[in-house]
Amino acid sequence: MGLGVVAHLVRLGVLSSTSDHASVVSINLFIALLCACIVLGHLLEENRWVNESITALIIGLCTGVVILLTTKGKSSHILVFSEDLFFIYLLPPIIFNAGFSQTFLTSFQVKKKQFFRNFMTITLFGAVGTMISFFTISIGAIAIFSRMNIGTLDVGDFLAIGAIFSATDSVCTLQVLNQDETPLLYSLVFGEGVVNDATSVVLFNALQNFDLNKIDAAVVLKFLGNFFYLFLSSTFLGVFAGLLSAYIIKKLYIGRHSTDREVALMMLMAYLSYMLAELLDLSGILTVFFCGIVMSHYTWHNVTESSRVTTKHAFATLSFIAETFLFLYVGMDALDIEKWRFASDSPGKSIGISSILLGLVLVGRAAFVFPLSFLSNLTKKTPIEKITWRQQVVIWWAGLMRGAVSIALAYNKFTRSGHTQLHGNAIMITSTITVVLFSTMVFGMMTKPLIRFLLPASSHTVTSEPSSPKSLHSPLLTSQLGSDLETASHSHIVRPSSLRMLLSKPTHTVHYYWRKFDDALMRPMFGGRGFVPFSPGSPTEQSVHGGR
Amino acid sequence: MGLGVVAHLVRLGVLSSTSDHASVVSINLFIALLCACIVLGHLLEENRWVNESITALIIGLCTGVVILLTTKGKSSHILVFSEDLFFIYLLPPIIFNAGFSQTFLTSFQVKKKQFFRNFMTITLFGAVGTMISFFTISIGAIAIFSRMNIGTLDVGDFLAIGAIFSATDSVCTLQVLNQDETPLLYSLVFGEGVVNDATSVVLFNALQNFDLNKIDAAVVLKFLGNFFYLFLSSTFLGVFAGLLSAYIIKKLYIGRHSTDREVALMMLMAYLSYMLAELLDLSGILTVFFCGIVMSHYTWHNVTESSRVTTKHAFATLSFIAETFLFLYVGMDALDIEKWRFASDSPGKSIGISSILLGLVLVGRAAFVFPLSFLSNLTKKTPIEKITWRQQVVIWWAGLMRGAVSIALAYNKFTRSGHTQLHGNAIMITSTITVVLFSTMVFGMMTKPLIRFLLPASSHTVTSEPSSPKSLHSPLLTSQLGSDLETASHSHIVRPSSLRMLLSKPTHTVHYYWRKFDDALMRPMFGGRGFVPFSPGSPTEQSVHGGR
Repeated sequence: MGLGVVAHLVRLGVLSSTSDHASVVSINLFIALLCACIVLGHLLEENRWVNESITALIIGLCTGVVILLTTKGKSSHILVFSEDLFFIYLLPPIIFNAGFSQTFLTSFQVKKKQFFRNFMTITLFGAVGTMISFFTISIGAIAIFSRMNIGTLDVGDFLAIGAIFSATDSVCTLQVLNQDETPLLYSLVFGEGVVNDATSVVLFNALQNFDLNKIDAAVVLKFLGNFFYLFLSSTFLGVFAGLLSAYIIKKLYIGRHSTDREVALMMLMAYLSYMLAELLDLSGILTVFFCGIVMSHYTWHNVTESSRVTTKHAFATLSFIAETFLFLYVGMDALDIEKWRFASDSPGKSIGISSILLGLVLVGRAAFVFPLSFLSNLTKKTPIEKITWRQQVVIWWAGLMRGAVSIALAYNKFTRSGHTQLHGNAIMITSTITVVLFSTMVFGMMTKPLIRFLLPASSHTVTSEPSSPKSLHSPLLTSQLGSDLETASHSHIVRPSSLRMLLSKPTHTVHYYWRKFDDALMRPMFGGRGFVPFSPGSPTEQSVHGGR
Repeated sequence: MGLGVVAHLVRLGVLSSTSDHASVVSINLFIALLCACIVLGHLLEENRWVNESITALIIGLCTGVVILLTTKGKSSHILVFSEDLFFIYLLPPIIFNAGFSQTFLTSFQVKKKQFFRNFMTITLFGAVGTMISFFTISIGAIAIFSRMNIGTLDVGDFLAIGAIFSATDSVCTLQVLNQDETPLLYSLVFGEGVVNDATSVVLFNALQNFDLNKIDAAVVLKFLGNFFYLFLSSTFLGVFAGLLSAYIIKKLYIGRHSTDREVALMMLMAYLSYMLAELLDLSGILTVFFCGIVMSHYTWHNVTESSRVTTKHAFATLSFIAETFLFLYVGMDALDIEKWRFASDSPGKSIGISSILLGLVLVGRAAFVFPLSFLSNLTKKTPIEKITWRQQVVIWWAGLMRGAVSIALAYNKFTRSGHTQLHGNAIMITSTITVVLFSTMVFGMMTKPLIRFLLPASSHTVTSEPSSPKSLHSPLLTSQLGSDLETASHSHIVRPSSLRMLLSKPTHTVHYYWRKFDDALMRPMFGGRGFVPFSPGSPTEQSVHGGR
């Protein structure tokens, strides 16, 4: 990597004379590696086993080895990981894009219906399921680890472990699932993954505020109250920020649209909502996620055509870069010597703990996927809406991978104020890295073959055109997007007799009332269309088309 | 601003427990102010006197006053300015976009011709003119300041002052000039502004490497050699990075385009070129500027339609945010108490120095605009190509404003290693801020009226639709862009008898040979079109259209 040569370069010039030369070197190396990940990820796209996250992890590992050899075993990473880096720069674009692109993924009438029809099931899996998983893993950890001699871990640490390993990473599975062939499955896995992220982070946050050494009913009640307060107020803040951006752009920009200003305003408002939530000690993840949903539902329809294309792709790109960066870093950091020093004293114990955690993850997820699927199936009337046994296995498998959020929470919990020196903390960090590496690489690589085996109907499409969530966007990107939506809405009105529409008729409930409310109150005020067919001459319509 | 309340909030939660709470507050405040700048800038767009930079400066000043009052006179700014922030995050997008959007600004055949026809004049103004301005200001500063009793400034400091005040900021003028009515003037002011930025930064960098206490012929020669080495190698690196990105995207992405990957790769490669230049002690500004030009000329034509729209607007938005941020900061920092403490000991002297610097700026610019215009006019054969006296005044005026680059260089030179405590350094910082504030606000506000007075032909268009460089992009943003270019190229071939074409015929020179080289060697290898008419079936054409 030429680090030796580089270090000998004379420190001159504007930048290098003021900032740390080493940081310039590491930024260069990181960006070059990111480029390598993108190119390699593209080349390996049709490969059966590998995806973008795994590519980044492997490249990170290889770079770690090279750095280890270059620095003669002193260090394997070139950038000190800070939670600030993760929570201020990397996480917001990832989560915001998850919310923002959700409407594009479900942008045709049928798929949006699919999403809202399964709203209850998704919430059930994401919120209740994560809680069940959390309790299973926590209790398992308390029961098993407290008998093993691993440093000074208290109840709070074990509960944190539960929250850390409840955060799933379903990206691998989403890259393989085909939304057109298995819309129910896709919306379930996607929706659950998003709610799960939020739930586990809120859980983790709520846990930090409590003295958990003596647990009684009052503490549990207070904890639950805190949890719901965080959940509701974060959601409210996100929705408020999204609506405010929609209102500002709708009111101000009539007739005089400026793409740069619109894009800048959307970006800044989304980021502001995240930072405000962090400032007010709410969950920034939930806030920015709901801000993304509201922005794509209202704000996005008030801006110019080019702003729509730009925001859609710019946010997706930022999220993509942030994710790749993260996996790259984790791969590199996995070889950090200092962390493994404790673990290497007792290699058997270290492997044991990682295996136990992996087992708990498997059990904790099984403990809610199959019972909750059963419950969900009870409420459905038609067999087509029920979750089949094979689909249940896919849902179970989809949430076994652990990723970026787990790593970030673990670093946050176990490295704070130089605690890496403690035996228990060091072992928990190395175990988290092991679980993330193993689950992403081994489980992740098995996902494609498993899904092909369980859902053979979709295998043909998967081979011919890999339908990652990213490539799903592509056909929508042209200027036809608006008219596509329009056509979809119209055809829905003109031909309500299609089989699918008839089947979904009985499931009014949430979606029906939401549409009524949206049409009567929200759309006239905040703009946006997509839910209702386009009505010519409406104020929204004028403001949308007036500026083009 | 509620800072008092906020400061009393309990520090809980993931983010606030690990990072500095104050930094979260200041990030929030800064983003909120940025949003305010965008909204106010939009509302004031048709105002006669004010533009976006001035809005940001005024909002920054007001916020500074509020913070001063809130903190009871202790501090006026909430973020410590670091050159790293400026040189690593803010400057690259601004300069890259200057290069990248240049091709869009000159994207129609005639205007691109205009740009290349004036290539020599632009280089003359930007490079030689900046050198003349640098020497005038430096010698003036040595002559005048060394007689006033202002601290310990040596020859190196005076030369740095020359470089700092040679960096112009022609954004205000470009917002007022109409590209369609005065294409010659527009391309001159724009091109000169860009080359000027690069020249002054390279000058500043080159100065840092020399012991300037004894100046003889050998030192001057070595300095000139260093200057040209920096210039050429930086340009080469930028061109290389741009071509590499074009080559990678052209070779890899045939038939399987992914917008996110393409956008990410372009962004990362551009940033990598900048950071590599800084690592190698070259001029990152020049590198990233040429990388932008090459990317918009080749890479941009190899990507999908949606990637084109996205990159164009995403880069413009990032540049817009960075610029607004900078002016906001400068406005806030202008009220910093500590810097003014020295100056307030001798208010007369402080005002005197600022006035002298302003005078030197006026003289230094006059010293090259009028002579070089005269020289340039000598080489032109037709009167339509000559720079009129009124246009010369506009060019002179366009470069009087001092902005972001001057501030950054001044901070770099005079605040390093806590030197703010020194009398001379403190006075130079306050004087720089005064000159930037005064020139941006007073000169900037007079630009619109002056141009309307001097070039009355364009006054009608300016009033009816303000043609800022940003809004100039807008008509091109639709998916018609490609076909527009095509049409322009075709019409150029079919009707070469138009008056303008005939007039430009004798000016083959650079442009003609460049086109030959581009067609024969560059385009087959790196793709891209825009210079030559579209020829169906060429490999470039296939790769461009194949992926859509």
